[in-house]
Amino acid sequence: MTLPKALAFDVFGTVVDWHSSIARETRTFLSTYLPSVDPAMFALQWRELYPQAMGECISGQRGFVVLDTLHHETLQKVLTAYGADISRIDPGELWHVAHAWRRLDPWPDVVEGLARLRRRFPVVTLSNANVQLMIAMNRYNGLQWDALLGAEFAQTYKPDPVAYLTTVKALGLAPEQLCLVACHHRDLAAARACGLMTAYVDRPLEYGAAPAPDAADAQQWDWHADSFIELAHTLQAAAAQ
Amino acid sequence: MTLPKALAFDVFGTVVDWHSSIARETRTFLSTYLPSVDPAMFALQWRELYPQAMGECISGQRGFVVLDTLHHETLQKVLTAYGADISRIDPGELWHVAHAWRRLDPWPDVVEGLARLRRRFPVVTLSNANVQLMIAMNRYNGLQWDALLGAEFAQTYKPDPVAYLTTVKALGLAPEQLCLVACHHRDLAAARACGLMTAYVDRPLEYGAAPAPDAADAQQWDWHADSFIELAHTLQAAAAQ
Repeated sequence: MTLPKALAFDVFGTVVDWHSSIARETRTFLSTYLPSVDPAMFALQWRELYPQAMGECISGQRGFVVLDTLHHETLQKVLTAYGADISRIDPGELWHVAHAWRRLDPWPDVVEGLARLRRRFPVVTLSNANVQLMIAMNRYNGLQWDALLGAEFAQTYKPDPVAYLTTVKALGLAPEQLCLVACHHRDLAAARACGLMTAYVDRPLEYGAAPAPDAADAQQWDWHADSFIELAHTLQAAAAQ
Repeated sequence: MTLPKALAFDVFGTVVDWHSSIARETRTFLSTYLPSVDPAMFALQWRELYPQAMGECISGQRGFVVLDTLHHETLQKVLTAYGADISRIDPGELWHVAHAWRRLDPWPDVVEGLARLRRRFPVVTLSNANVQLMIAMNRYNGLQWDALLGAEFAQTYKPDPVAYLTTVKALGLAPEQLCLVACHHRDLAAARACGLMTAYVDRPLEYGAAPAPDAADAQQWDWHADSFIELAHTLQAAAAQ
């Protein structure tokens, strides 16, 4: 197996544990406005509105809108669905909660694994997060990237092929020289359809106790690992052959 | 004076000493193909072709072309002007020399000064360098940025206002909340015309012994420093007031 020239990372789920971080970041807020709602369930239901919100931008139903704004809109939708009167919530407080997606913790293997991978490969984000969100998250959790690419750079969201191919182009590579690292089969399938290499990292706790919605889309990916540290070992071993 | 929310940096000249690095990186090549040419003079003359090459992209005379490619084109122009027969030079060797702009050393104050500034402010590049060039240069010289913005992200070159304003927008800021750090008066003037704050850092050796071509464009900038370390002290002092 040829080694990639660079690694591009999905972020939400693959790098950071959004589920438990969002539950933590919304707990106090929910205890005030929706005390009967479980923060872990709230995190899942908020996240469920995310594909449709992006889909409207991908389809051209609306122009490109950054993810921070979509988070702010979907937050209001999920709160309203739960019966909260959002007109009674301070707008600054709503934005603070919408920005909970900037305060996400990496999985335990990420700090060490990403540093190891970065010694050999340029590592870039290929995320639907906007630049401002990613900068804030990196400053929150200390992760270091070679560049922040993906949705805002391409002005469209994954799984639009343009998002993957614009990232490939910015790195001066052919598609098969870039490897997407992700825990989502649909993301990897879209990258593969564009010609990219694929590395699957298993994140069985991404949705807490709930199953991943794309389990049925599993394929044999080019690389497979249970952690970034294992991925670094695997690529290192392949390089030594 | 209000503090900025983030700092955006010009790179060539402000962060890195392109003049002596390009002279060093072309010395062996020139000794083979143009032994009578002084590398320090060659660096200046190569650099002189840079504004016109970008100008063709800004004016719309041609579409946006990344800086690596412009460097490759201007290299061939300057070699031909010196009488070299570029058809006799290996294409891979030409590209290696064109990529000398990826192997530039920072000024002596930059590593420490940038790290200090980054503790308080997000630091991004607002350079005409393309993403691939900047990634390679950062991996060469070890500098760490929060994001690589500027020309390729905006798909146009400075001093086109779009290059500054697209950077401002990606950071989620108002223009007056972003400060451009640069050693070039024309760059700072274009940023100021877009509403950005301005920090001038003096780099008297940018052109070696030669004078800067924009000395006559000096203005009173919002901040003024002789090094990144001094700029960090100045902003720190302003924050403490």
